[in-house]
Amino acid sequence: MPFFAETDFMNRKQLIGQILHKKNYLCVGLDTDLSAIPAFLKSFADPVFEFNKRIIDATREYCVSYKINTAFYEVRGFQGWETMQKTADYIPSSHFKIADAKRGDIGNSSAQYAKAFFETLGFDAVTVAPYMGEDSIRPFLEHKDKWTILLGLTSNEGAKDFELQQLGDELLFEFVMRKASRWGTTENLMFVIGATQTNLLAKIRKSTPDHFYLVPGMGTQGGSLKEISEKGLNADCGLLVNASRAIIYASPGEDFADRSAGVAADYATEMSNYLSAAGIAKFQSKK
Amino acid sequence: MPFFAETDFMNRKQLIGQILHKKNYLCVGLDTDLSAIPAFLKSFADPVFEFNKRIIDATREYCVSYKINTAFYEVRGFQGWETMQKTADYIPSSHFKIADAKRGDIGNSSAQYAKAFFETLGFDAVTVAPYMGEDSIRPFLEHKDKWTILLGLTSNEGAKDFELQQLGDELLFEFVMRKASRWGTTENLMFVIGATQTNLLAKIRKSTPDHFYLVPGMGTQGGSLKEISEKGLNADCGLLVNASRAIIYASPGEDFADRSAGVAADYATEMSNYLSAAGIAKFQSKK
Repeated sequence: MPFFAETDFMNRKQLIGQILHKKNYLCVGLDTDLSAIPAFLKSFADPVFEFNKRIIDATREYCVSYKINTAFYEVRGFQGWETMQKTADYIPSSHFKIADAKRGDIGNSSAQYAKAFFETLGFDAVTVAPYMGEDSIRPFLEHKDKWTILLGLTSNEGAKDFELQQLGDELLFEFVMRKASRWGTTENLMFVIGATQTNLLAKIRKSTPDHFYLVPGMGTQGGSLKEISEKGLNADCGLLVNASRAIIYASPGEDFADRSAGVAADYATEMSNYLSAAGIAKFQSKK
Repeated sequence: MPFFAETDFMNRKQLIGQILHKKNYLCVGLDTDLSAIPAFLKSFADPVFEFNKRIIDATREYCVSYKINTAFYEVRGFQGWETMQKTADYIPSSHFKIADAKRGDIGNSSAQYAKAFFETLGFDAVTVAPYMGEDSIRPFLEHKDKWTILLGLTSNEGAKDFELQQLGDELLFEFVMRKASRWGTTENLMFVIGATQTNLLAKIRKSTPDHFYLVPGMGTQGGSLKEISEKGLNADCGLLVNASRAIIYASPGEDFADRSAGVAADYATEMSNYLSAAGIAKFQSKK
């Protein structure tokens, strides 16, 4: 199956195909806040969708993934959910579609969440929180050709409250990742690793060498793409690095989409250098 | 302010007032699954809302709280969110309105979630997951006259994976509760304690004597109301015990609402006995 096939799912091979084809591992975060988008869009029936559409049109060439943060849609109630649904539908099937929802509940509730994001909304992946343990995650993993992205070590200050606490001879997040990596496989499970946690990234990569990581927190939150890439890349790339505000709010004016494309293109170029340096993109071109 | 005041919020005093007035601490869980409601409702424009409306009308006399599990609404996309919004609006202001959403994200995202549930949807309380630490919870706590209900020890089998792991000289959930109890107060923070965890409940009550607990897992999941009450009640009651499926699916026929009222009334009667036995309802009537 060629990497550009128009399927309604994206497995590991297809995702890697997209990364090698585009030579980047950029995820654009659609954390779209109605109060932060250019004023001229407010005359549209659905300003947030209009904004998202133009961001997607402008950036799709420079990224392999889009991530929708459900919080920014839920704040507008069911209308926000409708915007999210329209946005998810608008994302091209060539792009890995992530619902950043951080869900997790007892089994029969998690089964409903999994159905909501994988079936009703058609996402390829959803982020989940580990606190409630295996049976709260299992219903997500049971969806064929879909991805579960479990919180490992997050980018925020609060990571130190629990995630970085010592538990036996590990840190809690290490225990979580070690345990959870047995629930799924490298074909259906990824981890969230915050971009600000580069001091631990080499060690994390050693313990889960083959998994993909979704890395948020670059840009506005201060994570360095260079460090993330040097410590986090594996033979299959193994990274999806997200930027939200730095890309989508690149300009407050009518040129916002062009400017967001510019920022995305810069990230993509930087990423292609790291892929080359790691011998990953080169490997593909010899095939 | 009398306990039956029609305000758009419910503080601790008002919540306790409702409990003492009705002599129960029952929360009815609206985990309404379109595929599980009586067939004759399917002819209505919004069958789930019609179901919820009738359940609320029938049970409101026998409970002090309703809990909406967002998973069961999200599975139907934005139409499901519209049903949730209508249901939240329909719950009388005399009842404590909980969004069982288990949210939690970095600060600016959690701020959007808090606004979604407290402002857009008008809930009194929302459940949140602790993994990402204080700054992921803080935005919820900052809403005046609203409640944050943090996962402590959940009712599911998966609780053993992380929550019940040893961390220093505590279990992880004990560490979480001890730390989090300093972030909020007994006026704006509750904990989720699963009804199946009665062997630890006395110890939990000792460590957080004054907090309210939201206790799911009674009925279908096997928790015993007697044990929960004997070990969990404090001088202000301190419990909201939830039943979902056992109440709302009491009958698959046209009598479903009456039958759900019957089950709720039985729970309420049992609860009033426990309140009397603990000298709590009596204390009020002397006032």
